Amino acid sequence: MITPPGTSSADFAAALDGFREIVSPEWVFTEKEDIDLYKDAYSPFWGEPDERVASAAVAPVTVEQVQAIVRLANRYRVPLYPISTGKNLGYGGSAPVLSGSVVLDLKRMNRIIEVNEDESFALVEPGVSYFDLYNYIQEKGLKLWIDTPDPGWGSVIGNALERGLGYTPLPYRDHFGAHCGMEIVLANGELVRTGMGALPGAKSWQTYRYGCGPWVDGLFSQSNFGVVTKIGFWLLPRPDASLEGTITVPRHNDIHRFVALLAKLGAQGVINCAYWIESPFANTFRAGADHAFGATPDPEPAEWDVRAADKGLPSWAVRLCFHGAEAVVRAQWAHVQSEFASIAGATFSDGPLYRHPLSAQDLARVPKQVEIGVPNLAIFTAGARTREKKSPSAGHMWFSPVIPMNGAEMLRARKVFGDALREWGISPITSGLPMHYQERTFLMLFGFEIAHDREVNKKNRQSMRQMVALAAQHGWGEYRTHSAFMDPVVGAYSYNNSSLLKLHETLKDAMDPNGILSAGRYGIWPAHLRQAARQVNRRGDIQ
Amino acid sequence: MITPPGTSSADFAAALDGFREIVSPEWVFTEKEDIDLYKDAYSPFWGEPDERVASAAVAPVTVEQVQAIVRLANRYRVPLYPISTGKNLGYGGSAPVLSGSVVLDLKRMNRIIEVNEDESFALVEPGVSYFDLYNYIQEKGLKLWIDTPDPGWGSVIGNALERGLGYTPLPYRDHFGAHCGMEIVLANGELVRTGMGALPGAKSWQTYRYGCGPWVDGLFSQSNFGVVTKIGFWLLPRPDASLEGTITVPRHNDIHRFVALLAKLGAQGVINCAYWIESPFANTFRAGADHAFGATPDPEPAEWDVRAADKGLPSWAVRLCFHGAEAVVRAQWAHVQSEFASIAGATFSDGPLYRHPLSAQDLARVPKQVEIGVPNLAIFTAGARTREKKSPSAGHMWFSPVIPMNGAEMLRARKVFGDALREWGISPITSGLPMHYQERTFLMLFGFEIAHDREVNKKNRQSMRQMVALAAQHGWGEYRTHSAFMDPVVGAYSYNNSSLLKLHETLKDAMDPNGILSAGRYGIWPAHLRQAARQVNRRGDIQ
Repeated sequence: MITPPGTSSADFAAALDGFREIVSPEWVFTEKEDIDLYKDAYSPFWGEPDERVASAAVAPVTVEQVQAIVRLANRYRVPLYPISTGKNLGYGGSAPVLSGSVVLDLKRMNRIIEVNEDESFALVEPGVSYFDLYNYIQEKGLKLWIDTPDPGWGSVIGNALERGLGYTPLPYRDHFGAHCGMEIVLANGELVRTGMGALPGAKSWQTYRYGCGPWVDGLFSQSNFGVVTKIGFWLLPRPDASLEGTITVPRHNDIHRFVALLAKLGAQGVINCAYWIESPFANTFRAGADHAFGATPDPEPAEWDVRAADKGLPSWAVRLCFHGAEAVVRAQWAHVQSEFASIAGATFSDGPLYRHPLSAQDLARVPKQVEIGVPNLAIFTAGARTREKKSPSAGHMWFSPVIPMNGAEMLRARKVFGDALREWGISPITSGLPMHYQERTFLMLFGFEIAHDREVNKKNRQSMRQMVALAAQHGWGEYRTHSAFMDPVVGAYSYNNSSLLKLHETLKDAMDPNGILSAGRYGIWPAHLRQAARQVNRRGDIQ
Repeated sequence: MITPPGTSSADFAAALDGFREIVSPEWVFTEKEDIDLYKDAYSPFWGEPDERVASAAVAPVTVEQVQAIVRLANRYRVPLYPISTGKNLGYGGSAPVLSGSVVLDLKRMNRIIEVNEDESFALVEPGVSYFDLYNYIQEKGLKLWIDTPDPGWGSVIGNALERGLGYTPLPYRDHFGAHCGMEIVLANGELVRTGMGALPGAKSWQTYRYGCGPWVDGLFSQSNFGVVTKIGFWLLPRPDASLEGTITVPRHNDIHRFVALLAKLGAQGVINCAYWIESPFANTFRAGADHAFGATPDPEPAEWDVRAADKGLPSWAVRLCFHGAEAVVRAQWAHVQSEFASIAGATFSDGPLYRHPLSAQDLARVPKQVEIGVPNLAIFTAGARTREKKSPSAGHMWFSPVIPMNGAEMLRARKVFGDALREWGISPITSGLPMHYQERTFLMLFGFEIAHDREVNKKNRQSMRQMVALAAQHGWGEYRTHSAFMDPVVGAYSYNNSSLLKLHETLKDAMDPNGILSAGRYGIWPAHLRQAARQVNRRGDIQ
């Protein structure tokens, strides 16, 4: 049996007995075959001593049980690692950052407490998945959409706390941004409700987020300051229709005006969907089995334009989606076209118009259902199709830098990352596309392969670290990271001798003095492990 | 000379000398005629011993000076009270919550560091007012709007930190919600940048708000955990046009569907402006010189409908404003009409269409310029007009409860507050209108008079406390409060033995162990004053 670091066998046994008393013995897991399920399915340390493993898991079903578990963990100094449904594939899955932690598995807390159609919100527990919430709404016939990421099996709460993203209009596709009101079990076992939830009898817990006094909710995202047991989410009242449209522009340097218009129309709320900027021309000079991004360098703009014209391919393209009343979305798309018509040679093509609700047959014909808030697992087949040479068990870990939303920075990132990948001779899963999920920036996604091959994994771990450092040199930081890379990723946020991280540590010491919650998550280590973590991290390989 | 509580005269003198060294003697104020200017112009304790006064003021011009002042204040245990431009009329002005504090006046830090037109954001210091930012944008000819509250002389940062509100579309009119990235001098003098500001060289500080790891920004709103020295704000790219339209519905009980449609269309982003729900009929049975809300009770719905029909007046009305391309706003307004047409007897009238930018003459004809982002001070003349019987020096303090956005709760609030005002025989400045500033709730605003008359003020302080308690009984809490009422207002947020306030206190003790920053702000007292503050508060009158 694995024992949590710093916990004696006797204390650990006593803690496990206590957990069994709290949740009943069947919901405390200590057998290898059970706790192995909490390993990261895409672990970059697959089969190596550094692979993260839990010592046990405990699965409460009520808030009171969570409180009791947390109090007991304090008493015996047992490190806990709360998860919601434990997906988070590519970012560390359900495995604790600190090996030997006890996974606090909240999947049994899966109540949809309320879905309010008139005020369009939901209040849910951590075990509720996007599928659960979608199905609930469909079964009740409520005229509400959810916003779901790829894939739809994850936890609505877990994804929001990781600041995950979807596809429908803002604020909904910013899953943390669309939350309103939390319930949290603090590290000392105290139960807190934020926003209007702190006012007994308030009916605006899910509609007014700030309450009165400091707004603490942000502390509980990407952190380890508490165990979130309920969150309210705003939902989009079902739009009448969705209309797609595609814009292309011919020349390389059109990208500057192209992005500036996307930014402006986005800030005005006219364009309000997730999108990504393709380069139909540049796609043709990808080389290798993977058609990997960066396999050949981009030609200089003048040559680019000649070759693009030769091939009759546009330099840049974007597909947009408008949601709302049919007349409104048609007017929006027409206005967008009139704005982009200022770029000589711009082309416009109308995509399908969907009238909601779609019949089952019509829905089946929608190529990317997440764009209209329908959860699915199609992304996994997409991955399988494009990575034919890989083993079906091959996974990936994401490198996810935020890039400013202007053409110059986008081109710079394209070049810097493309050059590096070519130089290092590696080809992560990536389109090299600037993706517009967040409100005002681009995201680039690079999936570094995880194989059942230690040498491959070792090399990709090294590449991941190099990418983090390379991005930081250019002023680009990650919006989220795999749990194996939290120290270097957060370490890049180092302004003024990492004063922000020091503030996080001050908060950690105050809110969780025994350091029992999710040690190491987002670079925040409890005081008793801080020094050691820093030393391991300095050693070069991932801690 | 007033000495800060708990500071010896010798220490205070040494601190003042130190401040003079830091900012030069001319920017340290200790003369009565100077520090009197920091009194609350609308103090509910006017001329009474409890009136809040500063002991001194210090006005730095650089971040380094702020850091040095904060460090010195720690050394000598001098309580500081940071203000931006120090307006905040009706909520406490520039007066410290704790008498004897030294006002840390940031008005000299008034640089507009950047306004970026392509990515539509601004980065400003605390001394920048809405007028300053507007004028800067006009002078440079940038195609950007700001969002401004009534009135426009306040600090862009100060208002956002108080979670103030304006009139243009979301996210812009939620001034805290539209911020992106902060720079903060912590209570220990350390300088922190949040979000992407923590990543050296990042160009996305003003465009990606969360950064990586916990998002701490909310801690610095309505609180006393640090001194905010810079904030980025998202700006709305100037829309082509603004179109107004007014909707009325005939019957009392139409309010339910009326509000539900406003909520739905708001959540869909079709209606995206501040608005308030009028009752043209109910306005006719206001009595008294003030035409005070609640002066006569609302009749029962059946009688209401007969009388409203007799008078030919609608029961409810709302004026909306749409901003964007002309064809889009026309389509939006048409769609809104088609939705409200489901209420029998609904009427629609087109308001003016403005094409931006307006000429000076056209702008002068806009009745409420804040609705198109133009700061002004017109609200003061509005107050003067409707309060003719009051002294020109009479002020007010705001009671600002958040009400759920549904017809039943709105009617309930109307009745509860109306009945109470009538029973108590007081008539605050109020329309009794549910105002829609925040994203998903209504706000009701009641301005209790501040006079140069101790008896009037005493009665109104008592009424204010009663209103806070009455609201809390019904599940309504304030979104913001006058500094004299922070303890009772925050005290109503008492879920689970005030566990949220206890968390705030834990954070305060960790981040500001000497308790030097804004003691008592939003009910957060430093440890050494906490017990005393609670006792005073329990005594009954305002602490």
